Amino acid sequence: MRDEKIGHPGAELAAFAAGLRFEDIPADVVARAVDLFVDWTGSALAGKGVRPVEIMAGFARSMGPGGGACEILIDRSTSSPLFAALVNGASSHVAEQDDVHNGSVFHPAAVVFPAALALAQAHRASGREFITAAVAGYEVGIRVGEFLGRSHYKIFHTTGTAGTIAAAAAAGRLLGLSAEAMLDAFGSAGTQAAGLWEFLRDGADSKPLHTGKAAANGLTAACLAKDGFTGAKQILEGLQGMAAGMSSDADPARLTDRLGARWALAETSFKFHASCRHTHPAADALLKARQENGLAMADIASVTARVHQGAIDVLGPVVAPSSVHQAKFSMGTTLGLIAAFGRAGMNEFDQAYARQDIAAFRDCVRMELDEEVDKAYPARWIGKVAVETVDGRHVEARVDEPKGDPGNTLSREEIEAKVRGLAAFSGAAAPAELDKLLPRLWAIGESEAIGTLMPAGEEARAGMAAE
Amino acid sequence: MRDEKIGHPGAELAAFAAGLRFEDIPADVVARAVDLFVDWTGSALAGKGVRPVEIMAGFARSMGPGGGACEILIDRSTSSPLFAALVNGASSHVAEQDDVHNGSVFHPAAVVFPAALALAQAHRASGREFITAAVAGYEVGIRVGEFLGRSHYKIFHTTGTAGTIAAAAAAGRLLGLSAEAMLDAFGSAGTQAAGLWEFLRDGADSKPLHTGKAAANGLTAACLAKDGFTGAKQILEGLQGMAAGMSSDADPARLTDRLGARWALAETSFKFHASCRHTHPAADALLKARQENGLAMADIASVTARVHQGAIDVLGPVVAPSSVHQAKFSMGTTLGLIAAFGRAGMNEFDQAYARQDIAAFRDCVRMELDEEVDKAYPARWIGKVAVETVDGRHVEARVDEPKGDPGNTLSREEIEAKVRGLAAFSGAAAPAELDKLLPRLWAIGESEAIGTLMPAGEEARAGMAAE
Repeated sequence: MRDEKIGHPGAELAAFAAGLRFEDIPADVVARAVDLFVDWTGSALAGKGVRPVEIMAGFARSMGPGGGACEILIDRSTSSPLFAALVNGASSHVAEQDDVHNGSVFHPAAVVFPAALALAQAHRASGREFITAAVAGYEVGIRVGEFLGRSHYKIFHTTGTAGTIAAAAAAGRLLGLSAEAMLDAFGSAGTQAAGLWEFLRDGADSKPLHTGKAAANGLTAACLAKDGFTGAKQILEGLQGMAAGMSSDADPARLTDRLGARWALAETSFKFHASCRHTHPAADALLKARQENGLAMADIASVTARVHQGAIDVLGPVVAPSSVHQAKFSMGTTLGLIAAFGRAGMNEFDQAYARQDIAAFRDCVRMELDEEVDKAYPARWIGKVAVETVDGRHVEARVDEPKGDPGNTLSREEIEAKVRGLAAFSGAAAPAELDKLLPRLWAIGESEAIGTLMPAGEEARAGMAAE
Repeated sequence: MRDEKIGHPGAELAAFAAGLRFEDIPADVVARAVDLFVDWTGSALAGKGVRPVEIMAGFARSMGPGGGACEILIDRSTSSPLFAALVNGASSHVAEQDDVHNGSVFHPAAVVFPAALALAQAHRASGREFITAAVAGYEVGIRVGEFLGRSHYKIFHTTGTAGTIAAAAAAGRLLGLSAEAMLDAFGSAGTQAAGLWEFLRDGADSKPLHTGKAAANGLTAACLAKDGFTGAKQILEGLQGMAAGMSSDADPARLTDRLGARWALAETSFKFHASCRHTHPAADALLKARQENGLAMADIASVTARVHQGAIDVLGPVVAPSSVHQAKFSMGTTLGLIAAFGRAGMNEFDQAYARQDIAAFRDCVRMELDEEVDKAYPARWIGKVAVETVDGRHVEARVDEPKGDPGNTLSREEIEAKVRGLAAFSGAAAPAELDKLLPRLWAIGESEAIGTLMPAGEEARAGMAAE
């Protein structure tokens, strides 16, 4: 019964994830994986002190063991793999600074690294094993996101759903699952996969819950599979599987698209602005319009952001944001910050999202579906804005590749600066600690056995007090 | 912003769950809740020794704390509420003997009692608080199941999805959530809700995972809400909510159907046969045909079970079951056991599902969509069979209410016998232990502070050795 199904795309994808070896991964892909990992640690640290993340950390303390081999990065406590994955998964997505893969509209880092790091620490895996597991998670999750398609993303948060499979792939690779057990892990992961966009309408706290649970549930699926717990063999493409229930345009061919030849991880974009990725193309275009035409905020009467449908679906419900997090899903607020400051970073959102001039600017921004932009999406995220100035000029600008995309990527210096900025913003690590930490993070691939990354709690507190 | 949404059905349902008082619940509903609780303990004990359940219990041991106030019934160990809910939720659904609500096609006990019991034990809640919480869980979960409708059930295991909200309602009521926090809990529960039927095709282990995770995720949602974690206000009926993503025939009016006047808990059926509920109407009808016509197994040439579409959707994929659990989703196997033994209980499935005569009989059974049966479903589960005998007779039989339905219910003696049978089957408790345990279970409503139910581990082992 099993044999006759070996040929289906989900099984091929599982076999690829189970069989991936470090030696198979091109050096530039390994280097990019390390870039993405270091970038991720900044996002994970950025969650410190953020209410929903701290509530989840409290839940982990009350339900989990009092310690363990696995690190919760925001407070340097330790727990079992399940809770480390849960809290690190939540914390790394809340600042909206974690990476994104354009074609799948999926945030891989926030679900893959929490699961891989927790199990690597629990099993003292090598850096090579860790990187291999992370690559497996990216390659699988991105293809599952592409497979589920645009119809899925209209209602479901792909990072929550495809993310559960991605985390299972990374966790399963770290546990050394066979191809068959990996497929079982996919089955148990897919039948737990969840995450709905409805929370955006209220600015509710669900987004970090989605990533935390995707990481934890994927890890759970892999651990269960390791012990012989079976899952549906065709959870992705079966008649009562994920696509059947949650997509109307699923394309099974995407699941196995050039496995081992195309490295989807290397297509992943770093986030530059601290907002929802759907705002970035227009933000970059407005930045360009502003620079090219020497426009100050007061010069601008209105902005039309020409966008793809997905931007309207996700950002449309946010009319008058009532929190920093919700403001990151407001096109008007994001463009207002760009107009006012020339940037939309953590500090700008935190300090100015509710300012009267930003709110007034927000109400002069509208989104309009653009045929070219929509057609190119999600493979390419083109930014176009049309600006009317108060003195009656009409200005347009476009960017073909937003900052952070592979063709317009961040250098290692820019990544370091981003991590330092995020850690400083949240207070999760002192500059002197980062001086020591960052070289260790860049060298993660050479680690013989991955232990805790951050200085221990006591030491850290002393260190920070001394700053 | 919140005020204007108070009137929507999901908010009304949350307010009902948060505001429910023991005094509001009619005495016969309280008595039925106790019946359902005692019935549930039998199912929870029945999971002992079942591979997927034991794997999940091992996962709980490796990820959770070494002890706690909350009991894992199969092995009498203790843990935090999260893991007790997870393992008890899994164990109580695996024998296919837990209760079912016809109209919602939802198994309330397996998700409601694990969450309610774990938090009651953690907070030393009274029996009245426990019963009130359980009733809240049943009333909410059943209405959510009805709301999601038949289209949902075609792909999704309603007990996993609606069950997450049911568990959140029970847990939230035990934690004393306000109406607003209860709605937050619904939001966090709904955005975690999952469970796909795809596993049936392979006879994979996902079913107990669905109930365990529904109980644990609903409990998580309530605990987070207690600490101020917000959720989508319209996770059920919103434009990007559960119904939008996972149903095409959702009816929001069902969410608030006669709240406080109609007690859906009292409509819940006990399961008599140890198989999927979709087999029961036909099983009872064949039993009747067998008795009325004095038919032995060897007399029967073929059976046509006239069924509703849901039975075909769920049982159809099971052609040649390869495990006891999968056999419980085989109409042919179930009718074969009825034909051979006049019953389809735990022992019959365990010992005979793969027997050659049962397999041969199985292949002579077919399901046929019946207009009357399908129209009455899911409010009523009518059973109809047509039997062709080897000597050329044509025999028909029908039952209008399968054994265990409210109009054909189990007495307390029958429930006790069922619990004893399940505990004996799995070896989870010795008869002498049940002599002491059962009176305590029947009196749960009068408990001042709910502690552990089972004798402690050591004591129990000694007790069982002495039998």
